[in-house]
Parts: sequence; structure tokens; C-alpha cells
Amino acid sequence: MSNQDIPSNVREMIREGKWSEPTSGLCMGYVQANLVILPKEWAYEFLLFCVRNPKPCPILEVLDPGVVEPKIARDADIRRDLPKYRIYKNGGIKEVVEDISGLFTDDMMSFLLGCSFSFEKALMDAGIGIRNIDEGKNVSMYITDRKCQSAGRFSAPLVVSMRPMKIEEAIRASQITTRFYLTHGAPVYMDDPHGIGIDDINRPDFGDPVTIREGEIPVFWACGVTSQLAIESASPPIAITHHPGHMFITDLKDEDLTVL
Amino acid sequence: MSNQDIPSNVREMIREGKWSEPTSGLCMGYVQANLVILPKEWAYEFLLFCVRNPKPCPILEVLDPGVVEPKIARDADIRRDLPKYRIYKNGGIKEVVEDISGLFTDDMMSFLLGCSFSFEKALMDAGIGIRNIDEGKNVSMYITDRKCQSAGRFSAPLVVSMRPMKIEEAIRASQITTRFYLTHGAPVYMDDPHGIGIDDINRPDFGDPVTIREGEIPVFWACGVTSQLAIESASPPIAITHHPGHMFITDLKDEDLTVL
Repeated sequence: MSNQDIPSNVREMIREGKWSEPTSGLCMGYVQANLVILPKEWAYEFLLFCVRNPKPCPILEVLDPGVVEPKIARDADIRRDLPKYRIYKNGGIKEVVEDISGLFTDDMMSFLLGCSFSFEKALMDAGIGIRNIDEGKNVSMYITDRKCQSAGRFSAPLVVSMRPMKIEEAIRASQITTRFYLTHGAPVYMDDPHGIGIDDINRPDFGDPVTIREGEIPVFWACGVTSQLAIESASPPIAITHHPGHMFITDLKDEDLTVL
Repeated sequence: MSNQDIPSNVREMIREGKWSEPTSGLCMGYVQANLVILPKEWAYEFLLFCVRNPKPCPILEVLDPGVVEPKIARDADIRRDLPKYRIYKNGGIKEVVEDISGLFTDDMMSFLLGCSFSFEKALMDAGIGIRNIDEGKNVSMYITDRKCQSAGRFSAPLVVSMRPMKIEEAIRASQITTRFYLTHGAPVYMDDPHGIGIDDINRPDFGDPVTIREGEIPVFWACGVTSQLAIESASPPIAITHHPGHMFITDLKDEDLTVL
């Protein structure tokens, strides 16, 4: 195993400023997580938003106010162990930084949410190609016409990610991702994009368009970007998240997410 | 279908004071839920306790402050639709009542938590007998030496329920209950009771002892009584719960709890 295969080593490398790139491909087989940090006064409503919308916002861990070391990542420091962070102020993205030690306060609570890397690996292990990875692009993401259940000041439409595949692969992918209920679980929809309010499949709201081949259908999964729209709608004075693609690498193995 | 098979009818019957007995056996196939009501100032910490301990405290729904009609029970009123309620004051059981309309305030939040009735029916459908039901007793429950993850003022040891069965049945029961992840899911332990700190299997901490036959092992599931111990430890000025066995009957079908 190289150094880049062990979560604690990679976190240390990031902490020392030696890695500030996306984390995709690092520590294969280990769970990477989305990060959301909020002041306590906002955090509990966000917690309820996640509980009410577990498919887009699956909770891996909630850290107590002021705590920086997650249980699922030994000796980690969530203030410094992600390559890049986004700082939101009043619901808008203010800046992107590599260290939030100066911003994190004792009243802030951190959320680690499941990300789709885990189930993508499971799909690839089953021989199902991930088009955006094959084409070197970001996954296509769309704002749907489905509303999440709101919680206090947090509300959002459901955002989905899309992966094109053959019908038989879509069935197999439904089986496989069902087990990964902490990384968005089974698809929320497939086939006709208009059924969830997507007008043009070739113009995603986030990420890149990918090729959909003859005989393939688009398959849609709930997407963690939903939580970003919820933060924008709630507009807290400050919120800190991972920068897209620059995730927190945990000590959990992908298979741990299938434990019921 | 008789009147006693339709959740909305039974809730109405209870609301009108025509039924104040346990709900076991009513509306078979529909989900019954544990109820916990707390002032908002305490509710969010309890929410976090449930999120951190999903096996004993699986969340079916969290109602906003002052809301009395759950989404999972049309036209219901959680202040009057349970046959009996327990009133806790400062962590102790103060009284048992049949209506909480005079106690429920606009700052109170209600939690509906999964209960084991749903998976017991699935076990019986699979031909696995439930000993305490066969013997007309309450299920045996034990305080274990495992600690739940605490959240703010809420902490508790894990409480488990026990059902004796043959080895092959225990394996089948693990498969079946895994699907019911919102009603405690798979067993947390089986066989030697000392492995989870139970000294005498014939002396449960709650409920009744049941017969364990030659060739059978005790199988342990996380139990909702855990949340009662958490309420006692946190000692909020007021908390309202269902009275044991007197549950809230929802419109959800048992099978809905297996959706991932």
C-alpha cells in the first residue's frame, strides 16, 4: 500500500499543505464525506432537514459544538484535513480557503454526509461503467421539480445526479446502491427526465453534460448538492462546507456504509 | 375489513374514548409507533440522540413545534389518538392519562419512533414463533453494558428485547429484520447473555421472563425503551410519551419501513 492509500496519511499530507487537489481516486475503498459546518443556532434545524431528507443528505456523523475530531476519522482535524473549503456568508459563497482554523468557533457543529464515491466504486466493481469518469468530466446534476421536506429555515428542491446506462445495468445498479443507503441509496428516478422536471438532459444545472448512447436511459440519484441549496435558502450568517470534489477522507470502509 | 383494521377508524375510536387498551393486534400490517414529546429547548438534543443511536431509536417522523397531525397519519391528532400517555416531570413518571390536549403547547415537538410490532409480524409470517406472544406475556427486556452515544443532556445504556429461537431461525430472523431498518433492524447480539452484560436471562429488567427451550438461543434486538432511559437521565421539566403497549397507529404499511 502506498501512502496515498491510507486515510490518516492522506489527511496528514493535506494538513501539511502538500495536497490541495480533488480527493477522487485517493484511498480507494474508504468512505469520503461531504462536510457542512454551521453555528449551533442553525445546526439543529439543518439536522432536522437531513433527517427529513435522508436520500440527498445521509448523515454519517454529527460533531458536537467545538469538536474537530470525528469518531470516524482518528486523530483528524476537520478544520485542516480537507484540501479546500467553501465559506458561505448570508447564503452566498464568499471565498475558497485551504484552512478554516481561524474561522471555526466553539459554537460550531460539523456534519459529515455520505457522498456518491462509495457507490460509484461498487458499480464499477460490478462492471458498470460511470460515464462521467470515463469521459473525464464532472457528474451531471439537475435541479428537479420535487421539493424536499423543509425544516425551519432550511428548504430546497431535490437535486439529482445522473448516470446513463443500459436497462439491465439500471436494474443491477438499483440493487447495488440499495445496500449503500448512507450514500444516497437506490435511484430516485430513471428514464424520462421530464418526469422530475428536467427540460433538457444535455444542459445540467451543475457539473458537465455526458454522452447518452443509443439504448441507454438516464438514471437519477439524490445528490448532496441539495444541502448547498438548503444553506443558500436559509442564509445563515456563516456556513463552511467542503469545496466540490475536495472531500473529507474517513477511516470507514465503503462496506461499513451497508451495515444496517 | 372490520373497523378495527383501518387506522383512521381506530384513531377516531380512541379519540372518542371508546378504546383505552393496548394496541397490539389492531390494524395488523400497519405501522405502530412510539411517541416522545419534548419542549423544543430539549427536542433538538433528543433528535441528535436518535440520529446517533438509530437502532434503538429509529425516527419515522419529527413534527414541528406545535404541530399535532403527522404526515404519516392523515387527520390524526397526536394529543388524543393514543389510548394512554405517560407524563414525565423532571425525569420521573408522574402520571398516566388518556388525553394530553391540556398539556401540549406550541413549543413542543413530537417524535414518532419505530416499534418492534412490524418486524414481529414479518417473523411470524415467516413461520418463526414469538415466544412472549405465544405465552401471552410482555417481551423480555434487559439493560446491557453497552453505552449509547450521548447527545447533550441525553445518555443511556442500550436496552435490548429478547426472543428465544433455534439457530436456523436466528439466521432467518437476522435476514428478515435487516430489511426493517426503521424498526430496530437486525439483532445487535445473540447467544451468551453475558457478552452484553446480562447476568441472569430469567430476570429481565422490564417485561416478563419467557421460556427458553433446549436447543434455543436468546436473540437480542435494540429496544425503544432505551429512549425512556435517556429521558430519565436528561430530566427535562416535562416529557410526554406513549404508555407502554399503547402505541400510535400510523397509515404506513409495514412494508413501507423497508424502503431504502
